[in-house]
Amino acid sequence: MKEKFYNYIEHLQDQITSKLEEIDGKAKFKEDLWTRSEGGGGRTRVIQNGNVFEKGGVNISKVHGPLPKTMQSYFNVGDVDFFACGLSLVIHPKSPMVPTVHANWRYFEMYDKEGTIVDQWFGGGQDLTPYYLFEEDAVHFHSVCKTACDKHNKTFYDDYKKRCDEYFYNSHRDEARGIGGLFFDYCKADDTMTMPQWYAFVTEVGDSFLEAYTPIVEKRKNLPYTKAQRDWQEIRRGRYVEFNLVHDKGTLFGLKTNGRIESILMSLPAHVQWVYDHHPAPNSKEEQLIEVLKNPVEWIDSA
Amino acid sequence: MKEKFYNYIEHLQDQITSKLEEIDGKAKFKEDLWTRSEGGGGRTRVIQNGNVFEKGGVNISKVHGPLPKTMQSYFNVGDVDFFACGLSLVIHPKSPMVPTVHANWRYFEMYDKEGTIVDQWFGGGQDLTPYYLFEEDAVHFHSVCKTACDKHNKTFYDDYKKRCDEYFYNSHRDEARGIGGLFFDYCKADDTMTMPQWYAFVTEVGDSFLEAYTPIVEKRKNLPYTKAQRDWQEIRRGRYVEFNLVHDKGTLFGLKTNGRIESILMSLPAHVQWVYDHHPAPNSKEEQLIEVLKNPVEWIDSA
Repeated sequence: MKEKFYNYIEHLQDQITSKLEEIDGKAKFKEDLWTRSEGGGGRTRVIQNGNVFEKGGVNISKVHGPLPKTMQSYFNVGDVDFFACGLSLVIHPKSPMVPTVHANWRYFEMYDKEGTIVDQWFGGGQDLTPYYLFEEDAVHFHSVCKTACDKHNKTFYDDYKKRCDEYFYNSHRDEARGIGGLFFDYCKADDTMTMPQWYAFVTEVGDSFLEAYTPIVEKRKNLPYTKAQRDWQEIRRGRYVEFNLVHDKGTLFGLKTNGRIESILMSLPAHVQWVYDHHPAPNSKEEQLIEVLKNPVEWIDSA
Repeated sequence: MKEKFYNYIEHLQDQITSKLEEIDGKAKFKEDLWTRSEGGGGRTRVIQNGNVFEKGGVNISKVHGPLPKTMQSYFNVGDVDFFACGLSLVIHPKSPMVPTVHANWRYFEMYDKEGTIVDQWFGGGQDLTPYYLFEEDAVHFHSVCKTACDKHNKTFYDDYKKRCDEYFYNSHRDEARGIGGLFFDYCKADDTMTMPQWYAFVTEVGDSFLEAYTPIVEKRKNLPYTKAQRDWQEIRRGRYVEFNLVHDKGTLFGLKTNGRIESILMSLPAHVQWVYDHHPAPNSKEEQLIEVLKNPVEWIDSA
């Protein structure tokens, strides 16, 4: 399973980076290969200063070895070995009219000291963070998510949409990071799903990513915008940074377990602002966005 | 003691904000009074878009009531009442030639349910974060810190300078946030220092702040700088944000115990950049700064 899934994400990384380069038309992804002293490594690809994409990364990694102490206490297990691989991406477009997107698909195995698998699971998801809200874009993104889910289980979309709203939440601001999507974790074999069935589900979501995101980029990338709208985007990006550095388990985990810092923090936007006690004008587009972030919306009629 | 110290920080806030306004010559501090539903409140003063100061806050607060659960487990105590007050400041100048400064002086009391004080202590410090290093400025700042310390105990400067280097450290980057200063905490009555003696020490440091910082501002505020130097400052400010959101106990505490978010996050700079895998040119001024941050310097001959 681990070889199969790693081959999948290697191929998916190629697909995603070449499609995004095609859309950008100017910038190319820069590739950095890195190795982890305790075992494994990764292939980081970062795009900067494009026509469409200001900064973004599409990274894969595969790490293994003894489970670090901090992770032992996190997972509440003893001295075991582990294997983890995944694809992680964050794309920050230049225009405030084009949403930021994040996605991740990952697979984890734990072994006893004889090398027998004692636990294994998939996790991942994809979610959208607009600066100006076009409702039809939110509906499109969620529709693609739902279609991918529905092929595997009719309850997945509702469950994982809800978990996404709960997870990507800036509790200190009482607002969501964005307008959600899917989030799932600890997808293990049980009465209803075998590991191969989870593999089929997770890769279905991975395969849906470009369809979920790129039509929105194409539709919005040439819209005009003002300096004030760009400032708003940079202020909202501050909230993105706050989530990733204060709340995001994946980021904190990486920072505290000696991960490759530049691959982890590629998720941070290029230009960010913090303005003291900023509030958008009443009844503005900016205030409408905040309203939606404070009260997550059901974008799709779940009937 | 609590009234006495609160009066002191109220007065110190006035002194500091009027001196900084005088230096800036354009922007004025905006004052926000706030109350905490569980007891207490604060007086936040923020300056933005000045001639000299791009963004900064000089805040006092006084909070009391039952100790929140998260703080009970942090301090490893049961269901007690508490009182805490302090002054916290962060000043981000516009010019990359002028360092950012942070300072904090605070007092804490805990009571049993009969209202008897069961514990009390002072904490605080002040530290400097330059973007371009002028060694004489570092020596000046540390000399003022040492003079304040030496009046009370000849070992304080060495001890609290070292603790400052250890505390304001971005462990995920293997570098200090800045060039240090003083950091002390849990200053309690013992064989050598009574609480009134600690009061005298902490207020001595508080009184030294303007002398430690403002001559540096005056000396550097009119130096010319380039766009590239400003970009470097914004990239380094990213490290400041990383420290405050990932490592700083005070910030995380405030965010997780329902503090006033805008007063806490006034510490974040106005304009910040993250560039993937950025490295300064070999032998540049920028690289020299990094060297110093990786290997804390003894700025003063401690003999």
